[in-house]
Amino acid sequence: MSLFERLKADNLDDWQAYTRHSFVKQLATGELPEHAFRTYLQQDYLFLIHFSRAYALAVYKSPRLSDMRNALEGLKAIMDVEMDLHVELCAGWGISRDELETLPEASETMAYTRFVLETGLRGDLLDLQVALAPCILGYGEIARENALAKPAGPAADAYRRWLDEYGGNDYQSVAQDFSSWTDQTAEIYMTEARFAALSEIFNQASRLEADFWQMGLKA
Amino acid sequence: MSLFERLKADNLDDWQAYTRHSFVKQLATGELPEHAFRTYLQQDYLFLIHFSRAYALAVYKSPRLSDMRNALEGLKAIMDVEMDLHVELCAGWGISRDELETLPEASETMAYTRFVLETGLRGDLLDLQVALAPCILGYGEIARENALAKPAGPAADAYRRWLDEYGGNDYQSVAQDFSSWTDQTAEIYMTEARFAALSEIFNQASRLEADFWQMGLKA
Amino acid sequence: MSLFERLKADNLDDWQAYTRHSFVKQLATGELPEHAFRTYLQQDYLFLIHFSRAYALAVYKSPRLSDMRNALEGLKAIMDVEMDLHVELCAGWGISRDELETLPEASETMAYTRFVLETGLRGDLLDLQVALAPCILGYGEIARENALAKPAGPAADAYRRWLDEYGGNDYQSVAQDFSSWTDQTAEIYMTEARFAALSEIFNQASRLEADFWQMGLKA
Amino acid sequence: MSLFERLKADNLDDWQAYTRHSFVKQLATGELPEHAFRTYLQQDYLFLIHFSRAYALAVYKSPRLSDMRNALEGLKAIMDVEMDLHVELCAGWGISRDELETLPEASETMAYTRFVLETGLRGDLLDLQVALAPCILGYGEIARENALAKPAGPAADAYRRWLDEYGGNDYQSVAQDFSSWTDQTAEIYMTEARFAALSEIFNQASRLEADFWQMGLKA
Repeated sequence: MSLFERLKADNLDDWQAYTRHSFVKQLATGELPEHAFRTYLQQDYLFLIHFSRAYALAVYKSPRLSDMRNALEGLKAIMDVEMDLHVELCAGWGISRDELETLPEASETMAYTRFVLETGLRGDLLDLQVALAPCILGYGEIARENALAKPAGPAADAYRRWLDEYGGNDYQSVAQDFSSWTDQTAEIYMTEARFAALSEIFNQASRLEADFWQMGLKA
Repeated sequence: MSLFERLKADNLDDWQAYTRHSFVKQLATGELPEHAFRTYLQQDYLFLIHFSRAYALAVYKSPRLSDMRNALEGLKAIMDVEMDLHVELCAGWGISRDELETLPEASETMAYTRFVLETGLRGDLLDLQVALAPCILGYGEIARENALAKPAGPAADAYRRWLDEYGGNDYQSVAQDFSSWTDQTAEIYMTEARFAALSEIFNQASRLEADFWQMGLKA
Repeated sequence: MSLFERLKADNLDDWQAYTRHSFVKQLATGELPEHAFRTYLQQDYLFLIHFSRAYALAVYKSPRLSDMRNALEGLKAIMDVEMDLHVELCAGWGISRDELETLPEASETMAYTRFVLETGLRGDLLDLQVALAPCILGYGEIARENALAKPAGPAADAYRRWLDEYGGNDYQSVAQDFSSWTDQTAEIYMTEARFAALSEIFNQASRLEADFWQMGLKA
Repeated sequence: MSLFERLKADNLDDWQAYTRHSFVKQLATGELPEHAFRTYLQQDYLFLIHFSRAYALAVYKSPRLSDMRNALEGLKAIMDVEMDLHVELCAGWGISRDELETLPEASETMAYTRFVLETGLRGDLLDLQVALAPCILGYGEIARENALAKPAGPAADAYRRWLDEYGGNDYQSVAQDFSSWTDQTAEIYMTEARFAALSEIFNQASRLEADFWQMGLKA
């Protein structure tokens, strides 16, 4: 059983409140209002900037050269690829790069991103990885759970593309690699006595992710 | 004009949305539901723990020995005095220390505290001070603005005590000293080109403070 | 067996190269040239400033409120007491406070202090405690091993006072408490797989401490 | 006048003690003993690991997305290119990758690298850049000053290759870009009142670089 599986099992209600949030369900059916998705997309750009910072922090905090290399691959994937894809995707919704970069950051975006970063600074690489897990592994799980979804309505294509992006082999193997890397760190830094504190980090991060969906919905 | 006055002037709407929030107005009249205040009080205990960590971070980040001494005084004031007062105050509402220490942290508590800490780690002492300012100086201002308030109703005494605490000479001079200390840092580290970034930190922190009141209200 | 005892046993040669360094032996006999001790004393003042920062960092990084309280006691002991004692001690050697505060920092002072701080920032509280251990626990051990020493010569009184300071009950119980606190952290955060990395931190810190004595001697 | 030029002018003696160190002069003539260069090369590998961490820290601490991109380019240049080149270079001297990765870190390597990292964590991006400058810009200057050197003796080819590496267009433009990037940060974060503290960082880093050469020589 991976550490991730164990953390999920220990926080099942909050985990499902996040991964099966109305935002997700409505995205899968296509009922999600376009402006909800648009708000989400915009904030997700700011999110990616801080997520890059979190991967850079992981490089800094890595105890071994192999950890540094893993974290650097994650950092490059976001800054060299994913952010450009995101800008493109936003362009399709008529949101310009300038608009993205001057956007006020929503409370929910600040809340989750700063929580991840500060958790990493306060603790060790394992704390940081556990704080990142709900995002990286949750998106993968959401896309798998909705692999057969057929969104309908005006934004059907965009929602299908989103599900395909995170359900595709590329992202799924990124998520799998992240889970394995976390397990490797846990082999060295995890104790039973420490599990409760890690589970609390996982719980808090999952709740903050659910808030992030809610931010989209309430837009 | 102190840096604080200038930051306030640059963010007047968000500043007043925080300092004149319904929570504050209802506290001043006494209309604030007791469970709203109680929820606020409980979360404020968790807030103080992270606030202590922020002052410890200020000691670590201080460029000069005199800055370290200022930050240490703040740290001692919270950990050696304010937290015990808070436990006493909570006891008056039937909330035990054990209950306080095992309380789940609200999203709004995480959001503001981690924002302050991470801002301090990312930047310099001035960034950290500006992130702390809405809390330290805002409470002082709220108490001054409501100095003549006469709360009525079942929780009138508690609300009056809260206003007296922050309106009293002790807290007012803590706030004044913090403002002067920030100005001293600004003399060395502030440039006009940097003002916009500092103002954004102040704005974000003020918005997260308003969310913290809202958390109490929606309880 | 405490973690400290185990770390010492794993690094016996480097540990003794530090705790039984010529500087220490000459201090115990009184042969140590006065300017060597004077140089040491001056740099030790700068050392204490960074050591305070390390304790402040420990407050920030503490996973539990009880850890924060332990770290704060250490911080107060240095900044509120030990630094003033040090200034007094230096005054006895004709070194003014101004002189202390404008002193250029020796490479060896920078090396050990920044190593401790950076180790703490990179890792967790246990890493920080292990990096601090050679200083806190080594001084205690040196004073115990030389408890019966009778320094002779012109600086005999000063050397005896130094040995008494660190051999006295106050310091010995500070050292014992630090060791117990580290063991408490280790109960939660230590794994066998992690021991090698902790031992390397202990080894590096011990070598940097030996360099610090050498800096005095070569003056 | 760039900030770098100004910092150099303010620390000319320590700057030249580093850039015109006997190690450098002997490398330029070819008199440098091969084991001195070999020791330097080995430690420089460990240095590069921590230097990568410093660039990752710069990504984390960057106030703007453009700063993050600059820092990421530096990080990739070291981890994806320079470290492999270094392993190759070491292989030419019969030093295997395994040997490099298990090498004990010299005090001088710890001293400079941890100073850079901790300076960056304590302060802001500008502090970090100024701590990195003696390394990045000093190597460029050393290579330019010895562009016409014709090392003789058994290791002549290796020493010439070293000078060509850092004197070549690629490295020279890396250095120039770093200087410009630092100037851009300074435009926002530099004040006259702050110059003395920046100059002290530059001074300390230059002295620790000179110690690093000395470590090679004394081998």
